[in-house]
Amino acid sequence: MGPARTLSAATAILVAGCATAPDDMTPITREEVQTILDAQAAAWNRGDLAGFVSTYWDDPRLTFCGARGVVRGRQDLLATFERGYPTAEARGRLRFTLVEVRPLGTGAALVLGRYALDREAPAEGWFTLIVERTAQGLAITHDHSSGS
Amino acid sequence: MGPARTLSAATAILVAGCATAPDDMTPITREEVQTILDAQAAAWNRGDLAGFVSTYWDDPRLTFCGARGVVRGRQDLLATFERGYPTAEARGRLRFTLVEVRPLGTGAALVLGRYALDREAPAEGWFTLIVERTAQGLAITHDHSSGS
Repeated sequence: MGPARTLSAATAILVAGCATAPDDMTPITREEVQTILDAQAAAWNRGDLAGFVSTYWDDPRLTFCGARGVVRGRQDLLATFERGYPTAEARGRLRFTLVEVRPLGTGAALVLGRYALDREAPAEGWFTLIVERTAQGLAITHDHSSGS
Repeated sequence: MGPARTLSAATAILVAGCATAPDDMTPITREEVQTILDAQAAAWNRGDLAGFVSTYWDDPRLTFCGARGVVRGRQDLLATFERGYPTAEARGRLRFTLVEVRPLGTGAALVLGRYALDREAPAEGWFTLIVERTAQGLAITHDHSSGS
């Protein structure tokens, strides 16, 4: 067993601890997060709520903490958005401002930002996201959004 | 160079990527988080706001996202709490309910829970915390709290 194979075995063990795949050892970048937010806003603004929630982790462990408490899983999250924003008037036009991306190890990042909903009754607030490298690719695994 | 030293070198490289110290490779547990929340509630309920904020990261990168937006750094966070809760009546009695602890790699964890302030005008809501193993020990590095 040469040094390369020894290193590779060690990598496999340690990467398992970090819950990331070996080819995902680069920290999550601001550009990667901006791409997710841009995709979310574009989907929302064309009325495509299924597309909007496709940026979230498709796993029962997904959590969304909003004004009405915690929603778990992508299907329930979609249903919540469909109930809360049934018309183009209610959805308005969504804008995100990315404030900060802070890597948490190599497989996760904390994201802090502002949202604004331009509509007759405007809404705005803050969001905290956890973005992780999952088997499905980069995905939002937790969202805490609150008005302010 | 034997296998042990080779493994050790690989460990040092990979651990640096996870931003944790070699002796901090165990995932953050629910018990560790409960200890932080218990210390916070005890400090708050004896009117010790400095003790309350001592569970937060003492670093300018600390972020607290509340009803009035984002506060950075422990000194500004303490000043915010002192302004918002100047009397025993305003502080009331604080209770936390820990809902979930989800490890993010080995050096960080996502924490989800409920807070309740028992007082004449009761307040309650949700919190998302990021808890990390820092050079100062386990500390809250981000807090997003919102009423509901």
